[in-house]
Amino acid sequence: MKFFEFDGQRVLLGRLERGDDVLSSLTEFCAHESVTVGWVEALGAVERGGVGYYDHEARVYRETWFDEGMEIASLTGNVSSKDGETFLHCHVILADRDGRCFGGHLLEGTVAFACEFSVTTLTGPRPERTHDEATGLALW
Amino acid sequence: MKFFEFDGQRVLLGRLERGDDVLSSLTEFCAHESVTVGWVEALGAVERGGVGYYDHEARVYRETWFDEGMEIASLTGNVSSKDGETFLHCHVILADRDGRCFGGHLLEGTVAFACEFSVTTLTGPRPERTHDEATGLALW
Amino acid sequence: MKFFEFDGQRVLLGRLERGDDVLSSLTEFCAHESVTVGWVEALGAVERGGVGYYDHEARVYRETWFDEGMEIASLTGNVSSKDGETFLHCHVILADRDGRCFGGHLLEGTVAFACEFSVTTLTGPRPERTHDEATGLALW
Repeated sequence: MKFFEFDGQRVLLGRLERGDDVLSSLTEFCAHESVTVGWVEALGAVERGGVGYYDHEARVYRETWFDEGMEIASLTGNVSSKDGETFLHCHVILADRDGRCFGGHLLEGTVAFACEFSVTTLTGPRPERTHDEATGLALW
Repeated sequence: MKFFEFDGQRVLLGRLERGDDVLSSLTEFCAHESVTVGWVEALGAVERGGVGYYDHEARVYRETWFDEGMEIASLTGNVSSKDGETFLHCHVILADRDGRCFGGHLLEGTVAFACEFSVTTLTGPRPERTHDEATGLALW
Repeated sequence: MKFFEFDGQRVLLGRLERGDDVLSSLTEFCAHESVTVGWVEALGAVERGGVGYYDHEARVYRETWFDEGMEIASLTGNVSSKDGETFLHCHVILADRDGRCFGGHLLEGTVAFACEFSVTTLTGPRPERTHDEATGLALW
């Protein structure tokens, strides 16, 4: 267990434009607004979207893509740093026209139809992601 | 990209009563507590529930209903204004007895069995929803 | 409807270690950090995980277990007290290698592969869970 304590929140609500790449737009937004640490939530819909599953043995992401309109039923993530750059780690759950849900790691290439988000900024320590031997992932 | 900046959060935790309509109860609660802008999260269970999928071409919501007990596996939304009234936009993920998830736009008519919620109130600008040509939706 | 009002948030971001029991680790963490009331969000992956469905008639939880790596696509919960002890009530959505989602009540025995969490602590009243006749659950 490792943790960081913060206080003094500033909250940013916003929406992406149709056609924006969800992950890179949110990342650029946080970088531009100097959000070094924070928590992200969002809802909306995508024109296409991809979710990643991390294979614990092979240590690679397996991707599943949906080339159709899907609801963003849930999107949760955080903002911290990796290699000194603003880095967002988000998971998303997409729902198809029958409501069926598909989720995992939010992949770049997921394109917004409409997306309303909240970024809660945190002031205090600055978690940095580094390679973790136990998982093969870049963790705090 | 469009956004609003806030500070000075007040947080309200509560629970709905069995039989309450989830969306209209949360909306009335926010109106009654003068929450003009905020972020909503919840968990619990419903006696019946509906999720909406917005058809990007036809620009209408397709509804899927479940007339049985379902878990509220996730509920995320926000509070702002539309036509000068308190307006909640929420997405929900419902899970059936085998855990299978169905999600989308939270529909009125979804009835609580038990529901614990958090409303983080935000102080600052007051986003107002207006018609967006690119999507056909009422957006900030 | 019943609710509690809070202000003065302190936020804790952290991560679990591979092999940690998700629910009991988060509970111990909150108890250790004197978080008496709060809201929890998380994402990550599990080595195995279980979700519960509360049968409204039989008033027992039906469990579904997954003995394989799954993404934590969403985790939402709260911290309060039950029988005078720190008590977390969390719902989780797990996604398999094809992205398919299974959700419900987070069960003890769910083992972290990697898990990043946020605990927003709340200062004010102290909700206590007591038996609710209408549902058979321990509610505020």
